[in-house]
Amino acid sequence: MTVLSPRGFVASATAAGIKPDGQLDLALVATEDARPVPVGAAFTSNLLAAAPVQVSRAHLTESGGLATGVILNSGCANAATGAQGRLTAELTCDLVARALGVRSEHLLVCSTGTIGTELAGERIEAAMPLLIGGRASSPDHAAAAAKAILTTDTRTKEVVVEAKGFVVGGMAKGAAMLSPNMATMLAVLTTDASSSPDALRTALAHAVRHSFNEMTVDGCTSTNDSVIVMASGVGPEVPDEALAEALAAACADLALQMVADAEGATKVVRVRVLGAVDGDSARRAVRRVAESQLVKSSWYGEDPNWGRIASELGSAGTPFDPDRVSVAYGPVTVCRGGVAVVHDKQALREVLGAKQFEVTCDLGLGASAATMISTDLTPSYVELNMGLS
Amino acid sequence: MTVLSPRGFVASATAAGIKPDGQLDLALVATEDARPVPVGAAFTSNLLAAAPVQVSRAHLTESGGLATGVILNSGCANAATGAQGRLTAELTCDLVARALGVRSEHLLVCSTGTIGTELAGERIEAAMPLLIGGRASSPDHAAAAAKAILTTDTRTKEVVVEAKGFVVGGMAKGAAMLSPNMATMLAVLTTDASSSPDALRTALAHAVRHSFNEMTVDGCTSTNDSVIVMASGVGPEVPDEALAEALAAACADLALQMVADAEGATKVVRVRVLGAVDGDSARRAVRRVAESQLVKSSWYGEDPNWGRIASELGSAGTPFDPDRVSVAYGPVTVCRGGVAVVHDKQALREVLGAKQFEVTCDLGLGASAATMISTDLTPSYVELNMGLS
Repeated sequence: MTVLSPRGFVASATAAGIKPDGQLDLALVATEDARPVPVGAAFTSNLLAAAPVQVSRAHLTESGGLATGVILNSGCANAATGAQGRLTAELTCDLVARALGVRSEHLLVCSTGTIGTELAGERIEAAMPLLIGGRASSPDHAAAAAKAILTTDTRTKEVVVEAKGFVVGGMAKGAAMLSPNMATMLAVLTTDASSSPDALRTALAHAVRHSFNEMTVDGCTSTNDSVIVMASGVGPEVPDEALAEALAAACADLALQMVADAEGATKVVRVRVLGAVDGDSARRAVRRVAESQLVKSSWYGEDPNWGRIASELGSAGTPFDPDRVSVAYGPVTVCRGGVAVVHDKQALREVLGAKQFEVTCDLGLGASAATMISTDLTPSYVELNMGLS
Repeated sequence: MTVLSPRGFVASATAAGIKPDGQLDLALVATEDARPVPVGAAFTSNLLAAAPVQVSRAHLTESGGLATGVILNSGCANAATGAQGRLTAELTCDLVARALGVRSEHLLVCSTGTIGTELAGERIEAAMPLLIGGRASSPDHAAAAAKAILTTDTRTKEVVVEAKGFVVGGMAKGAAMLSPNMATMLAVLTTDASSSPDALRTALAHAVRHSFNEMTVDGCTSTNDSVIVMASGVGPEVPDEALAEALAAACADLALQMVADAEGATKVVRVRVLGAVDGDSARRAVRRVAESQLVKSSWYGEDPNWGRIASELGSAGTPFDPDRVSVAYGPVTVCRGGVAVVHDKQALREVLGAKQFEVTCDLGLGASAATMISTDLTPSYVELNMGLS
């Protein structure tokens, strides 16, 4: 059931005609009784923030961190749409708020799809009776909502984390324009724990930093990234740490599902940089490797071209000593002290041939480390993104 | 004749067996009388600088900016090869120096090819008689040298700039691992003008900044980038400005040839960012667009997906106002004030369908601008770089 596994929530989904092919494209996740509950959110760092991001941010400020629900559409990002786009995002919230008998600022809104085209507000208006009337807490409703937010994703992304006395559930989408500092992704998380807006915001910030912000598909940061968590309070009060931990586990799970479904990708690669002089250097170095077109192309070919990895480490703009660097694929070290070392070629082939593997780069300079989850770059990625959109 | 168009130089090339397929892979460009002459050079900013880069840098310091010639090999980068790699690069210079009767520090050395494999010094030694004995100043010799430095390039890259009273010639290679701050590229330039090491260095730094450092193929900065200019002094003394101008023209021409031959590329796209608050912001923003996988994929598909461009501008980490940005393909403005504007769709198709076009992004904030030449990202790029190397 995922996003509806925690008690106190309902969902619905419908085809509003925003996607041209008649697929599900509009979803609502809300509290069962329409009561506003504590909510935490994290949004894109892109300064071209989409209209729904602008409106949701404003609503959160006005409401003091309370929300009744989130309405999400796929098929149109409602980004780079100016004042008209903001009006449409506000209208969307107004329509749901009126139907549920709550104030508009208690609704949040998310969109995903093509940037620069107008969202047809009249289609959302026309779909409202089905969306409102169709709310329920069944597994089918959760599945339909998870499906309605997809764009180029090939499968739904759902998670349930069962903690002591409470549950965290969630759904997400994201397959490209995926990079740290929030990716082209939407995620809605729910919990039946009792919490406060402050505690949720803190826990979510931590969870996002170590999940969505540690993955990359193409180095692009979208205009629409939104992660929202709602706590129904139907269940018990729980320690902040327990909630933070469950939330982090749920986000990490969803992030991995996104990378695994990344456009055109055939492999998930976890890149680790160790031995950096400080955390910032570690993060810059790991990002340089994880986003390198050349390195990602070699992963696709299962080519142990560690020279490209070493070259990226040397040009990351961070401290680097060529005589101290080592590189390993899985457990197989191929470079030590900056030069090739004899290694088990058959073992190396097996590592590179797997669907998932790890690349470990030790800079040999300090004690700081960073991790990023990436994918290979494939001809299919290019074909999927060559348009015409 | 290109690299031999200026008076006072000879060249030769041979197949030393460094490339497995028996192609030309070793070249020498030297002064006709083996006399050391003023030389300027610029090398990679990658901290994993290849052995030949380390050795050439040291030689330039020892010689005070004088050189008799440059020996270049393709097929092996001699990078990430540690102390042994430096010995091989020194040996290469020693062999040529002994044969020409000059000191070893008067030789510079360049390598290009795979990183992390050892360069076979004995093959270079065995090829020495042909390389030394084969020196001449004929067009065929220039062409052979230009060919011997290629790797995945599909054609040679040569240039001649005729200035008032002197000539600048050059040859270059580079098809991937191409990005600002020096690309995976080698370039040797010659002139018959009289000059000094200081004047050459200054002129070259300016020329490199506005040519090779303004192009990108894949955002990767190689371990081996080297640009070297030698002035034979056979011709007259010329004003520094005249030499700088001719050198800049020659470098810009070679840079464009490199991008046009970029691995898998079908289009050359000149990206301009205008209206930035300062030069650094302009350069960061233009680089963000020019290196975006998503944007480059859309160019391949001739898809006018300006939303991706606007999204990159918004996430470049520089000042940005969504209500002021405009984007144009060639003369066709598709976004103004941050939203779509009505435009001539047929004219737009024609711009995007061409082999070369320009993308202009006006941030509307200030007076600073920057330019970068890039390419589309294609399935062929991935296929060419998937290995196995």
